[in-house]
Amino acid sequence: MDSIKNRRTIRKYKQEDIPEALLNELLEDACRASTMGNMQLYSVVVTRSEEMKKKLAPAHFNQPMVTSAPVVLTFCADFNRFSKWCQQRKAVPGYDNSLSFLNAATDALLVTQNFCTLAEERGLGICYLGTTIYNPDQIVDVLQLPRLVMPVATITVGYPDETPEQPDRLPLHGVLHQEVYHDYTEKQIDEIFSYKESLPENKHFVELNHTETLAQIFTDIRYKKADNEAMSKVLAATLARQGFGDE
Amino acid sequence: MDSIKNRRTIRKYKQEDIPEALLNELLEDACRASTMGNMQLYSVVVTRSEEMKKKLAPAHFNQPMVTSAPVVLTFCADFNRFSKWCQQRKAVPGYDNSLSFLNAATDALLVTQNFCTLAEERGLGICYLGTTIYNPDQIVDVLQLPRLVMPVATITVGYPDETPEQPDRLPLHGVLHQEVYHDYTEKQIDEIFSYKESLPENKHFVELNHTETLAQIFTDIRYKKADNEAMSKVLAATLARQGFGDE
Repeated sequence: MDSIKNRRTIRKYKQEDIPEALLNELLEDACRASTMGNMQLYSVVVTRSEEMKKKLAPAHFNQPMVTSAPVVLTFCADFNRFSKWCQQRKAVPGYDNSLSFLNAATDALLVTQNFCTLAEERGLGICYLGTTIYNPDQIVDVLQLPRLVMPVATITVGYPDETPEQPDRLPLHGVLHQEVYHDYTEKQIDEIFSYKESLPENKHFVELNHTETLAQIFTDIRYKKADNEAMSKVLAATLARQGFGDE
Repeated sequence: MDSIKNRRTIRKYKQEDIPEALLNELLEDACRASTMGNMQLYSVVVTRSEEMKKKLAPAHFNQPMVTSAPVVLTFCADFNRFSKWCQQRKAVPGYDNSLSFLNAATDALLVTQNFCTLAEERGLGICYLGTTIYNPDQIVDVLQLPRLVMPVATITVGYPDETPEQPDRLPLHGVLHQEVYHDYTEKQIDEIFSYKESLPENKHFVELNHTETLAQIFTDIRYKKADNEAMSKVLAATLARQGFGDE
């Protein structure tokens, strides 16, 4: 499993298509992931056409991978298919609520990660687009997602045309807790983040952005409170629109 | 990657401990999963003590794996560590909202699935406990999770002491959509679920439960509307208590 250990996100792809048979094989194997009660509460929308990539791009803040990757996959939490089956079998589904959304989102994300692992093992490169849950309303419209279907992850896939450095990670003890959660002291936080802060590329990043600390790049530029709050409202509204809102 | 293709959930484990070095190696490699802005918005709580397993068990409806597995892992969405770092670096974090919860939950679930793949590749067996989000309030208490930490997945791990049948999956075309979501016709639903309904074990399951259809086992016995709605309230209350509620 060196492919997991050595993995890096790939944002530049060769002009080479992914054979449909390969893509389907990877997706079929990915569906072996654990799923709540074997309900398989997900759907995957495959985007290959230029036209659809262009329509999806704004939802992902026009990140170039969306239009340059041969394949874009949108993984969705899906209780529509299962509920339709229930209705056709004299069973009354009760999955229009937030718990069911989180169940289905979990199912979808486990398959997403399985797909990424399998794709990388076969020499493909992937980029995970976190923007999916920032603009879910736009994605619902573009991909024509019906009630009880909600996008939760987008992956761009292609043959790598770059070999980026592997990004840093926090030391394992910084994310591990034995038996109970031991909340962090100031000193521990300093220690856990010290390697990240010491990296030349992060120091350069701070200079470039004219902030005093690396953390301020996150809070003041990249992931701002006001943006998070505005996007939380979009998320809640889209969940309600897709039938996953409570009450 | 035959371990993904051939995987099955393992609920019975040998009386054999998992060496700490192996567990840590698997977790460290699992953290190579994609993460939002490299923030690593997760923590993992390791449960090995009998006492803590007993305390956790009721939250998982006393499923026997919790007390019989050598290791229980609770994967948590965690914005606490990152927010504390921000505060110590003159940066004002804005992650006490539902979007940030879903970002962190996503990070945590990708690591969870990576861990499962790596563990299975090394001959371990895992069981994914969906009950984590049914009783998150109890888990918060038992594991002493602070504000901005929310449990999202629990995995029991050990050396397999059984070789169960591999469960069925829907045909791939049943979960795949090309370019846009093509909503299912009645005929398509019949076709997609026909194999599942034809399986002797599922027919037996229907007999055992005295229902008319397989779907009714899900709606009337296993995943009932009233339960889902009650647990949605617990979920919302726990998210609010942990600081991820909006407003």
